[in-house]
Amino acid sequence: MNSSTTQKIDIQKVSTSRIGDVDFDNLTFGSTFSDHMFECDYKDGEWQNPTIKPYGPLTISPAAKVFHYGQAVFEGMKAFKDEDGKVWLFRPEENFNRINRSSKRMAIPEFPKDIFFEALTTLVKMDKDWVKPGLGNSLYIRPFVMATQVGVSASPSTEYKFMILMSPAQAYYTGDVKVVIAEHYSRSANGGVGAAKAAGNYGAQFFPTNLAREKGFQQVIWTDASDHKYLEEAGTMNVFFRVNDTLLTAPISDRILDGVTRKSVIAIAKRDNINVEERPVLVSEIVEAAKNGSLKEIFGAGTAAVISPVSAFSYKETVYELEMQKNGFATRFKNELMNIQYNRSEDPFGWRFEVV
Amino acid sequence: MNSSTTQKIDIQKVSTSRIGDVDFDNLTFGSTFSDHMFECDYKDGEWQNPTIKPYGPLTISPAAKVFHYGQAVFEGMKAFKDEDGKVWLFRPEENFNRINRSSKRMAIPEFPKDIFFEALTTLVKMDKDWVKPGLGNSLYIRPFVMATQVGVSASPSTEYKFMILMSPAQAYYTGDVKVVIAEHYSRSANGGVGAAKAAGNYGAQFFPTNLAREKGFQQVIWTDASDHKYLEEAGTMNVFFRVNDTLLTAPISDRILDGVTRKSVIAIAKRDNINVEERPVLVSEIVEAAKNGSLKEIFGAGTAAVISPVSAFSYKETVYELEMQKNGFATRFKNELMNIQYNRSEDPFGWRFEVV
Repeated sequence: MNSSTTQKIDIQKVSTSRIGDVDFDNLTFGSTFSDHMFECDYKDGEWQNPTIKPYGPLTISPAAKVFHYGQAVFEGMKAFKDEDGKVWLFRPEENFNRINRSSKRMAIPEFPKDIFFEALTTLVKMDKDWVKPGLGNSLYIRPFVMATQVGVSASPSTEYKFMILMSPAQAYYTGDVKVVIAEHYSRSANGGVGAAKAAGNYGAQFFPTNLAREKGFQQVIWTDASDHKYLEEAGTMNVFFRVNDTLLTAPISDRILDGVTRKSVIAIAKRDNINVEERPVLVSEIVEAAKNGSLKEIFGAGTAAVISPVSAFSYKETVYELEMQKNGFATRFKNELMNIQYNRSEDPFGWRFEVV
Repeated sequence: MNSSTTQKIDIQKVSTSRIGDVDFDNLTFGSTFSDHMFECDYKDGEWQNPTIKPYGPLTISPAAKVFHYGQAVFEGMKAFKDEDGKVWLFRPEENFNRINRSSKRMAIPEFPKDIFFEALTTLVKMDKDWVKPGLGNSLYIRPFVMATQVGVSASPSTEYKFMILMSPAQAYYTGDVKVVIAEHYSRSANGGVGAAKAAGNYGAQFFPTNLAREKGFQQVIWTDASDHKYLEEAGTMNVFFRVNDTLLTAPISDRILDGVTRKSVIAIAKRDNINVEERPVLVSEIVEAAKNGSLKEIFGAGTAAVISPVSAFSYKETVYELEMQKNGFATRFKNELMNIQYNRSEDPFGWRFEVV
């Protein structure tokens, strides 16, 4: 990690909040932004000029390396408001650690921990009215880093911009999620950047995901690029399979994101003596389990969606339907997680982080 | 391809050229830009408002999808000036076709051919004084497309910006190029976006390339992600191996860029009755050939570098030196290509494209 500067954050407040213009009951995920944003530049070998300012456009060269070489990483986090009006984050240190792991893999300088937390908490405090109470409501927080050096030559940037944007959100997915198991396209390679939240990992999935959508499916479950034999992740979610009462999920690797929701689900499951197997999961065993009835549930786990139950999957042109479980594992983990996130229950793991 | 609008390009000229401020004998590749740039926006389902304007910064939302999801592709081309002051492009249709193939894979709408060529030729004509005569000098041309829709949700953008920047260039590489053969890290996956000039493919290589640089090597030759057994490409160049008098290079696949310089080298070699094998090339056969003396040359082929002879490669901690050939294949192909590019020879393949 870069050593901390002890610079204070320069704070420039909006003169008038835009909050009155927002219809909080009709939010499109990730498209409305709160009054303020955070910005900090890396130049001459250090992070400098941390600033909170009104959310607004950037002025940036079209030759900035981010546009040409995708040298950019991001995080996704949420702030939650409890019934007393207190605002909480969920395991923010995990996101901090992960953005620096992602940065390292993308040859981006790591960001100092003290500035990250100071910026995050100051920003959430300033825009706390944008965090609406009520289960499912949250303020989605997007820290990201981009390469800003001017230059169309393929080498690491010498200048970067670290930013945090915040966007009020309702629930991410609506309706059933049907998925396609990837048989041709891939998300990541051994020795690649799949474990990083690198910008390009996401854009690369849009085309195959569109193909799935055209057939009536919302997401793709990616498989290993070598043989498409093993189930990996869903691009914006890690994936769990419940076979009888055992929970299966792919192990973390350099192809698979070390999801915060994923590891939280595993922790809850283990505490509750649910058998969890983190191991390579064969497509064939899940297909077999679907056929013989032992496959009870599939669900995705990720910050944006929390837990997304999967109602069907397609593999080799066959669609396997899953009976939706009202009181299944997905519901149980979702409730447990949300109760912790919204301060509706004890916090046995110490995951809540009080902001204000 | 998107149907062409018949819109005229709006042209806004600089009031004063910056060309007098540029030291054309001391250019850093890709860091100086000519007076004008081209911009065209995709909105409401069509490309609109094609504009040539003074090179300068963009105003763009920090929530534009390009920053978060790397939905961006690019091309690299060059304009050359001959001794009569005429300006030429080299196989521009190849770049046009490829940027649309790249766009398709990245779920970006394709760009109309007539606007592409009109913009390209108008821009080069306007800034023709930036193309300096003399072998090795060129005007590097960077068409690119980025996702501009505001939104931090991982789905294809509904808005894009297509741009062309131009940067005067001298020779790309100086000195010997030493390479490391990848044994752990990878560039691309089967079914991934390696064949596209997607922005994220390049940023993903910076960290492993830095590791190579720390050991005194300039580039990495990527191998297949499954087993690291086969030689693929060098990230900014395709790679050729000369074993005795046979030229070997990896076949085009969804992991390997269909390089314009690569296919031009193959065409010249075939015309000259050089035996060319486009087939999977084993690391082990190249190591064996290096040991028994049959490996005569390795060279990279790409627009920026044209042809880069490799003077050594490292594999499993052993460094294999190559005797640099004054009159080898690398020199021969480089001369042939440059003679065509600079209008110093016949153009038997019809590759030259006169701009002005």
